[in-house]
Amino acid sequence: MIEINEIRSIPEPTLRRLPLYLYFLKNLANHGILEVSTTKIANEFKQDPTQIRKDLGYLGTLGKPKVGYEVPVLIEAIETFLNWNNTTEAFIVGAGNLGMAMIGYEQFSKYGIKIIAAFDNDSEKIGIHIKDVPVLSISKLTDLIKRMHVHVGIITVPAESAQSAADLLIEGGIKAIWNFAPVNLKVPEDIIIEDAQFATSLAVLSRKLMEINNINLEKV
Amino acid sequence: MIEINEIRSIPEPTLRRLPLYLYFLKNLANHGILEVSTTKIANEFKQDPTQIRKDLGYLGTLGKPKVGYEVPVLIEAIETFLNWNNTTEAFIVGAGNLGMAMIGYEQFSKYGIKIIAAFDNDSEKIGIHIKDVPVLSISKLTDLIKRMHVHVGIITVPAESAQSAADLLIEGGIKAIWNFAPVNLKVPEDIIIEDAQFATSLAVLSRKLMEINNINLEKV
Repeated sequence: MIEINEIRSIPEPTLRRLPLYLYFLKNLANHGILEVSTTKIANEFKQDPTQIRKDLGYLGTLGKPKVGYEVPVLIEAIETFLNWNNTTEAFIVGAGNLGMAMIGYEQFSKYGIKIIAAFDNDSEKIGIHIKDVPVLSISKLTDLIKRMHVHVGIITVPAESAQSAADLLIEGGIKAIWNFAPVNLKVPEDIIIEDAQFATSLAVLSRKLMEINNINLEKV
Repeated sequence: MIEINEIRSIPEPTLRRLPLYLYFLKNLANHGILEVSTTKIANEFKQDPTQIRKDLGYLGTLGKPKVGYEVPVLIEAIETFLNWNNTTEAFIVGAGNLGMAMIGYEQFSKYGIKIIAAFDNDSEKIGIHIKDVPVLSISKLTDLIKRMHVHVGIITVPAESAQSAADLLIEGGIKAIWNFAPVNLKVPEDIIIEDAQFATSLAVLSRKLMEINNINLEKV
């Protein structure tokens, strides 16, 4: 039974901070700390308390005057908000190095996602199991999405195969794609795309490193 | 010999788009297409041509009136801007599933980064090689960073070990950290941190999916 929550539009930067708040709060709970003030959270994240109050305000009215927040209540609220206390099943396309690592990554269960099958076109991989997850032929992908009502597809194929993987996922009826290939996927407007390309991170890292090296050289 | 480039401050969203432009341009070059107009790039990325012109403007004055851009010139300019035509050596801390996948990920060479050693505290892993990359004891990390002048550290340890891994990297003299652990790392201000946590991506994906599911339920 799915409850209909109120839909609140939340700014993406806030959404991206919630998992970090959650980890911090769980750490507090593990140390037996059951109450936390906005100021303490603000100090931990080097943010303004106003920002923290605003971010957590999206979860509902949870703060108490003077006390701040009850840690277990806040943990529960973030997990519910992110739907991490339910499990969403996902298919992964591409059982190469990255795909295999993701299948083996036990932390995903904490984040409400479970990879239930992998798909590849390499005949040597088809039929094997990686930690109980079967690797199936890519030819079965579309049909299985339909039959199993899977909503999330993860793309870990090389760049040149990424668009065709996305097309198959969408043909099957997937609603959200988590894309690791360094490609600008073309998808219908109602498909959720979350890009998590290593290339993007490395562009930022590499350029910033170059800039500080240049600054240091100029100081010489 | 390192050339001192002019340091231009570039907005991070632009920086994050450059690898996608690069992939698109390389694809054109592979198909023998040597010139591209701003409009064509804009259509590919569903962006306004003004935005494309602005983004590529950070690379210097490369566009020609009427012709647009020469594809090989633009490829070279982006790679130089990102320093991807030089190789930056990196250490990785944490040789678990994710760490091993990253060591095996051959695409990194395209992005100017080379993982030259992995560090772990698991005695069963210490001494093995993953694709020619040795797994060494974490106790050697700080000393080796100093001796080898390594500037980039990648953190793929579990959340609870991430801060201590960061501390060791910084003690050794690392300048930039690529962090995969779902933790808000505390580092001095001059250290570059690029967060690439799966938890963050999954927060966005999961919440958006929940929202569209709610919308669909409400329509019933």
